[in-house]
Amino acid sequence: MATDNLTAVLHGIEDLRLEQRPIPEIADDEVLLAMDSVGICGSDVHYLAHGRIGDFVLTKPMIIGHEAAGVVAKLGKKVTTLKVGDRVAIEPGVPCRYCDHCKLGQYNLCPGMVFCATPPYDGNLTRYYKHAADFCFKLPDHVSMEEGALLEPLSVGVHACRRAGVGLGSKVLILGAGPIGLVTLLAAQAMGASEILITDLVQQRLDVAKELGATHTLLLQRDQSAEETVKVVHQTMSEVPDKSIDCCGAESSARLAIFATRSGGVVVVVGMGAPEVKLPLINALAREIDIRGVFRYCNDYAAALALVASGKVNVKRLVTHHYDISETAQAFETSRRGTGGAIKVMIHVQPRDANNKVKF
Amino acid sequence: MATDNLTAVLHGIEDLRLEQRPIPEIADDEVLLAMDSVGICGSDVHYLAHGRIGDFVLTKPMIIGHEAAGVVAKLGKKVTTLKVGDRVAIEPGVPCRYCDHCKLGQYNLCPGMVFCATPPYDGNLTRYYKHAADFCFKLPDHVSMEEGALLEPLSVGVHACRRAGVGLGSKVLILGAGPIGLVTLLAAQAMGASEILITDLVQQRLDVAKELGATHTLLLQRDQSAEETVKVVHQTMSEVPDKSIDCCGAESSARLAIFATRSGGVVVVVGMGAPEVKLPLINALAREIDIRGVFRYCNDYAAALALVASGKVNVKRLVTHHYDISETAQAFETSRRGTGGAIKVMIHVQPRDANNKVKF
Amino acid sequence: MATDNLTAVLHGIEDLRLEQRPIPEIADDEVLLAMDSVGICGSDVHYLAHGRIGDFVLTKPMIIGHEAAGVVAKLGKKVTTLKVGDRVAIEPGVPCRYCDHCKLGQYNLCPGMVFCATPPYDGNLTRYYKHAADFCFKLPDHVSMEEGALLEPLSVGVHACRRAGVGLGSKVLILGAGPIGLVTLLAAQAMGASEILITDLVQQRLDVAKELGATHTLLLQRDQSAEETVKVVHQTMSEVPDKSIDCCGAESSARLAIFATRSGGVVVVVGMGAPEVKLPLINALAREIDIRGVFRYCNDYAAALALVASGKVNVKRLVTHHYDISETAQAFETSRRGTGGAIKVMIHVQPRDANNKVKF
Amino acid sequence: MATDNLTAVLHGIEDLRLEQRPIPEIADDEVLLAMDSVGICGSDVHYLAHGRIGDFVLTKPMIIGHEAAGVVAKLGKKVTTLKVGDRVAIEPGVPCRYCDHCKLGQYNLCPGMVFCATPPYDGNLTRYYKHAADFCFKLPDHVSMEEGALLEPLSVGVHACRRAGVGLGSKVLILGAGPIGLVTLLAAQAMGASEILITDLVQQRLDVAKELGATHTLLLQRDQSAEETVKVVHQTMSEVPDKSIDCCGAESSARLAIFATRSGGVVVVVGMGAPEVKLPLINALAREIDIRGVFRYCNDYAAALALVASGKVNVKRLVTHHYDISETAQAFETSRRGTGGAIKVMIHVQPRDANNKVKF
Repeated sequence: MATDNLTAVLHGIEDLRLEQRPIPEIADDEVLLAMDSVGICGSDVHYLAHGRIGDFVLTKPMIIGHEAAGVVAKLGKKVTTLKVGDRVAIEPGVPCRYCDHCKLGQYNLCPGMVFCATPPYDGNLTRYYKHAADFCFKLPDHVSMEEGALLEPLSVGVHACRRAGVGLGSKVLILGAGPIGLVTLLAAQAMGASEILITDLVQQRLDVAKELGATHTLLLQRDQSAEETVKVVHQTMSEVPDKSIDCCGAESSARLAIFATRSGGVVVVVGMGAPEVKLPLINALAREIDIRGVFRYCNDYAAALALVASGKVNVKRLVTHHYDISETAQAFETSRRGTGGAIKVMIHVQPRDANNKVKF
Repeated sequence: MATDNLTAVLHGIEDLRLEQRPIPEIADDEVLLAMDSVGICGSDVHYLAHGRIGDFVLTKPMIIGHEAAGVVAKLGKKVTTLKVGDRVAIEPGVPCRYCDHCKLGQYNLCPGMVFCATPPYDGNLTRYYKHAADFCFKLPDHVSMEEGALLEPLSVGVHACRRAGVGLGSKVLILGAGPIGLVTLLAAQAMGASEILITDLVQQRLDVAKELGATHTLLLQRDQSAEETVKVVHQTMSEVPDKSIDCCGAESSARLAIFATRSGGVVVVVGMGAPEVKLPLINALAREIDIRGVFRYCNDYAAALALVASGKVNVKRLVTHHYDISETAQAFETSRRGTGGAIKVMIHVQPRDANNKVKF
Repeated sequence: MATDNLTAVLHGIEDLRLEQRPIPEIADDEVLLAMDSVGICGSDVHYLAHGRIGDFVLTKPMIIGHEAAGVVAKLGKKVTTLKVGDRVAIEPGVPCRYCDHCKLGQYNLCPGMVFCATPPYDGNLTRYYKHAADFCFKLPDHVSMEEGALLEPLSVGVHACRRAGVGLGSKVLILGAGPIGLVTLLAAQAMGASEILITDLVQQRLDVAKELGATHTLLLQRDQSAEETVKVVHQTMSEVPDKSIDCCGAESSARLAIFATRSGGVVVVVGMGAPEVKLPLINALAREIDIRGVFRYCNDYAAALALVASGKVNVKRLVTHHYDISETAQAFETSRRGTGGAIKVMIHVQPRDANNKVKF
Repeated sequence: MATDNLTAVLHGIEDLRLEQRPIPEIADDEVLLAMDSVGICGSDVHYLAHGRIGDFVLTKPMIIGHEAAGVVAKLGKKVTTLKVGDRVAIEPGVPCRYCDHCKLGQYNLCPGMVFCATPPYDGNLTRYYKHAADFCFKLPDHVSMEEGALLEPLSVGVHACRRAGVGLGSKVLILGAGPIGLVTLLAAQAMGASEILITDLVQQRLDVAKELGATHTLLLQRDQSAEETVKVVHQTMSEVPDKSIDCCGAESSARLAIFATRSGGVVVVVGMGAPEVKLPLINALAREIDIRGVFRYCNDYAAALALVASGKVNVKRLVTHHYDISETAQAFETSRRGTGGAIKVMIHVQPRDANNKVKF
């Protein structure tokens, strides 16, 4: 077995280092994975810049990375569902399996959740990583490792749309055309939404959204009142949206989502912004608009994989940049600055396409 | 047919008059009702004091009253479900029957809703009133007219608990022990909640709640932090509440509801306060706590009647004062001031118990 | 106004006549429609051949036809949502608007339902027909009248998939590739099903299903055991189906649906066969497979229209034959015999494409 | 530690023996329990008489018993939620925690379920038994061990009512007043059903049902037609039932449930009878009556415990006979014959009330 286990470790604010780590020992229900592709998420960048997200605070060195796919290198004794050589996408959170949330099918709310690259737990931007076998999803031959890594953000989009209750004929308003807005768009389309209007402050992002199938795009102006914006949203769509999904997290976008949604509809907030926001609560209450949050995903990976494997959505378009693990610093810089229209930056732990049957 | 149609008409702020009005003509799907009992609601008092609630503004004289029961005096040509002499509770809103909301079973959200004593529509504190026959609920002999009138607030409680998803074994936190808090308590009990903690700033109201079956009561202190209060709520209940129902509408109580609720739970806000409130949105989102409003009720009257008729709940305790229609001014004053521990003030358009088989 | 009102009237078994009928008077909430396209449904043919379907018995002459689209010719006084000249699809059942089912959003179960060409109510294979305005759906310019007529069967498919809970990543088994099986296939795709296996006894129908996007087709053999068939179904699909929709109504297909479905899944039966069927009930119960029926549709027309208008599904392929209303007898004969691979036979009350902006 | 581990072992048909077994070793997530009370279930008797239930076949000696409560005698290393001496009710099935069903919150459908006294897994009519700690529910001091054992059948009633969607104002028809019918009655009451009619062929059982709170009882005649019975059911209840729960499992009662239920309602079948039954499927489909099974329970124990602990239901009335473990043979005989109006027969592994703070 190899001994090189180059690993990207976040030691503190602005202190991300590549270093050797021991190859992990696996438990009976785990597999050892030779990592292949790891995408950079906004939260990774946030930890690098701030050392914390809300109550999750970096207090000791932590391996970064959680949007990932790898190849099974070794099996725990009880693992029967995978075999060595299987190419898998990694659902990065493993719950306790014992609490009420786990039993109720809400494992994303499990207080004992061990989640990659959320302090104090290590992530998987490393050569060798171990993971619970049942949270690894075998990729069909025609699905690339990069697409496997992209199942992570796509699962957020799936979960958001499921929380919103998007279905056949839904009119969906998506606020924000960043990576999460775009995967939400892809999921909403696949679930039967007949109209999707997506907004952003940057035209370039809206162009990508249009390319990916948004029926309408709307460039917001920073100084526009919510009232004016709502009017334009309603005029642009044939009907008032019944589902609004805020992928920004700004107070202004949560407010806009409420004002724009039809009575009896749903506002889902995916993006997380300031801890305290001022909301037009009576407007929501008196029209029975439900406000729902999204925390990661739960039982969504299989559907996300089915979406990609069936060709219903094309997530490849999201990847704008590729780096080798040795270039991790530059990769983070690109993601952080949004250089060159960066949407999703992919880090390759193994040579590109080494594990792909079909080139990415 | 009688010609006396003494009626309580709100002409403007602090201008409520008793005057004669013509007895209404009925349409084919309506009945004429000889009114019996009409309860005073907080909203009635609010219109008297402020001439408006939110966007509903009094611009011309309006008959007040919407918590009511009466006796069928005349049938429209197409009415087959009622007969003259039937004692009925009146669900006070009649929707358009044509819009999408009506077809989807959300008629409370119908934009064409005609609702008693909501400008510009007249209410039913009057001797003779007409109403759509299918929104009249025949009372069994052992249910009094007063209880019929009380189905209106009780339906709000039923709707709130249904929106919250209260069920067997629910741990429910109710904020506010006013009339709406109390009917919510009654509904939650009947739906199988195993623990109900109710809070208020007034001990006397908590005593009534205890008498009506709250498993815990908690006297709030005005200067207590949300953090401290949450700790006490959790210590008092055997488990963290999974449903919190805010019947106050104050910013502080909506905030408390969010902080106190367990992950994956529901916060329902019934009371309506300031149009804008500051909320700990991330706390709610990251724990996937849904925030839902309650606007009146929809398909809840039959269940409310079944609750009362089956003896599962006792709403009689809510009525603390009785007045004749000629004493309407005093009745409003009592309700407004909360004199003598006033919870629900009942106005009798006919002599008390005239239409009751069993004395109230 | 025109006086020619040529109409197809079913007088009894095998007695379908073309005759003149008076042009109907409209009520305030109705519109008069100049009919354009009317599809023939299996139930129309069944009434022609048997004079009844279950408890619905033809006891007096009845106008046939209920899959239809027309052009608004006259407005009732209260109609504000349509204007003369609007091209509309007709949802053929108008409920009472007063019963509990109507209020609960289950109007398809309304006992007072007036449904086209279901005895004793007249259908709309006629030049002039009146209908409740709110059950007419305005077609966008790019949607043809024929597609408008096809919204009727498509709505059945939508309702079936909604009853089944088809969603993102569903593995769907559809039994029967007739018109209802095909529209169910289209709806399931649009709702995000990742695999759809459709079965039939006729290869030609499976070829159409494949063309319309079925991921798998399976030609059933009449003498094959359910056990063998289930094995083949499971081998063909990557996973055991979680939703099975029986569009045949045969006892054997309902049984197959139960055996083939995974634990916790749903079996929906759309097709109606013998009144009594022998079912492996314990197999369904012990695996908590729900068995659900489909009776027409409810709040599904708008989604069906959105599906077609957005281009997500192509229903045009279903229409295999066109006839003029004067050729009604031949049209029924073709539909009945399945001549020339007949799937959907369309009758034109006006010259083809007369009302289409885009040729069909 | 004790060494006596007297155990009731089923060796084959009519071959139930008391014998010594080794005291089990516990895993890290398990507790060792000193058993106290074990109720006899119809399935236990069925295994004794037939050696099998459906596909579950006794092929080697199996410890009997699964309705049980005991006292924690030893803790596994990882157990933090219990302590030695805790009195607990035992949810008898432990799922695999890894499969899709487990993750979706449907652990009762887990194919890897290890369930007490279901071949090949041992039950708990024994002095010392080990169990997963998280499937042990700590009893409050005022709840007796016998009530703890009764949580097992009560959970079936809870699950049945939840599957039926019983709620406020439900009109419930329960077919069969045996132990399962009675616990279903108790659960339905607690969930807000306003009318419950229960049927049986034996008046004595109906008398108990009446005592426990059924609003109506109906003595069925063996030779009565379904049509006649339905008529009587509808006349007796004020409204057509919207939920019918068959606790018999006979073909005739499943049929009756379908015919008696209102359109849009639900039929739940709890009792399991013949593998094949003839059903009026069209009647169910055309009225969109859902047919749902019940397989054990899932996330229902906590609610069942809350029901008992809160005093909302009184399950004590169900226990008609008490035996010591040394009298196991007589206990089974009483349960099997229904001697002396036997409903629930309780076997005591320890002296009665030895572990009860409040005498049973």
